[in-house]
Amino acid sequence: MLTLYYAPNTCALASHLALEFAGAEYALERVDFASRAQRSEAYLRINPTGRVPALATPQGVLTETPALLLYVAQCHPAAGLAPLEDPFLLARVQSFNSYLASTVHVAHAHRFRGERWADEPAAIEAMKQKVPANMQACFRLIEDSLLAGPWVLGERFCISDLYLYTISEWLEADGVDIRDFPRDNALRERLRADPRVQRVRAAEA
Amino acid sequence: MLTLYYAPNTCALASHLALEFAGAEYALERVDFASRAQRSEAYLRINPTGRVPALATPQGVLTETPALLLYVAQCHPAAGLAPLEDPFLLARVQSFNSYLASTVHVAHAHRFRGERWADEPAAIEAMKQKVPANMQACFRLIEDSLLAGPWVLGERFCISDLYLYTISEWLEADGVDIRDFPRDNALRERLRADPRVQRVRAAEA
Ligand SMILES: N[C@@H](CCC(=O)N[C@@H](CS)C(=O)NCC(=O)O)C(=O)O
Ligand SMILES: N[C@@H](CCC(=O)N[C@@H](CS)C(=O)NCC(=O)O)C(=O)O
Repeated sequence: MLTLYYAPNTCALASHLALEFAGAEYALERVDFASRAQRSEAYLRINPTGRVPALATPQGVLTETPALLLYVAQCHPAAGLAPLEDPFLLARVQSFNSYLASTVHVAHAHRFRGERWADEPAAIEAMKQKVPANMQACFRLIEDSLLAGPWVLGERFCISDLYLYTISEWLEADGVDIRDFPRDNALRERLRADPRVQRVRAAEA
Repeated sequence: MLTLYYAPNTCALASHLALEFAGAEYALERVDFASRAQRSEAYLRINPTGRVPALATPQGVLTETPALLLYVAQCHPAAGLAPLEDPFLLARVQSFNSYLASTVHVAHAHRFRGERWADEPAAIEAMKQKVPANMQACFRLIEDSLLAGPWVLGERFCISDLYLYTISEWLEADGVDIRDFPRDNALRERLRADPRVQRVRAAEA
């Protein structure tokens, strides 16, 4: 049995969607950011980084979105969520996911979590100011170079689409108009209409 | 044939080491940061993010360190650089690599690349100030929770060790004393003494 530690409207949605699309058996454990439960002693024993997502498995806890996505895909091969049979295609999936985790998600995090990287309020405010331009540049690169369409890999759906969908849901709040990015917009609309996505979002709400 | 695009003293060292430890056939292509070659039109056609590493393969170019490390391990299974046969252990490797890419490398990058996240010189200076404390906290977490010792996974050596080694070489310049972290220090010393590491570093110098 798998237990996903999540908070609503976070990157944990990508792993939640992967579990649902994989047809996995899983339980949900909500981490209450309002009371800073992610920094509680109990939660730090589960995930010492104090973040979501974390996935408790029979063998131990796993963290970090790209790792969780690949793990869920590997444990449910019938769902076909990753090109496990092809090292090059799998590496393209990993490249894309790693770009989202290390560049795009990080660009976004400078809006709310600036205190990670500077102490001065003016510096934190300066970081906030740059978020729209940075997210715009990231999605320009995704649209022009990384997203083949209709899915990231082209005709083949995979975990990267769930991860891209998750971050695309942040765009309006980050000051970006998704209509500048027709392929990404189409991907988001298609997944918004998917009953599995709707089920997962309802469970988080 | 594989070609690695790299610059000295960057995260590309991890992928370079993986190629060497895998016994791969590969060529090196140096990207000259001094002349901002990473932003040249020619290089942006290879890697539109304008960063190193990039790995040209017969099937196309791959980017992002965690993806390159797994790809090299998968293409050279005899070298045993990743626990490919065990999805849980492989996910632990991926978790670790993703933590390095999305948190530790990003913490470090705020020393030299603050202009990515703010425009004001004072904000960029404020980010610089916080780098030693952030890198110290990251390596405290690695030492106490993630690095089993002597290697990341315990007795079993893998790509994560090469990646951790690479970032550990930045610690002094980031204002951190590695002697606060005996396991990480031992790992770094052991790899510094390895002839393959010495060969790779000489090739980059
Ligand atoms: N690299 C991690 C990042 C995880 C992360 O930053 N999660 C955010 C939510 S999107 C979080 O838990 N933030 C809580 C906090 O910073 O206190 C991943 O990709 O899973
Ligand atoms: N997420 C990427 C990060 C790559 C990266 O930031 N590389 C740095 C060197 S360590 C770079 O090329 N910087 C050049 C620049 O910012 O202009 C990875 O893990 O490969």
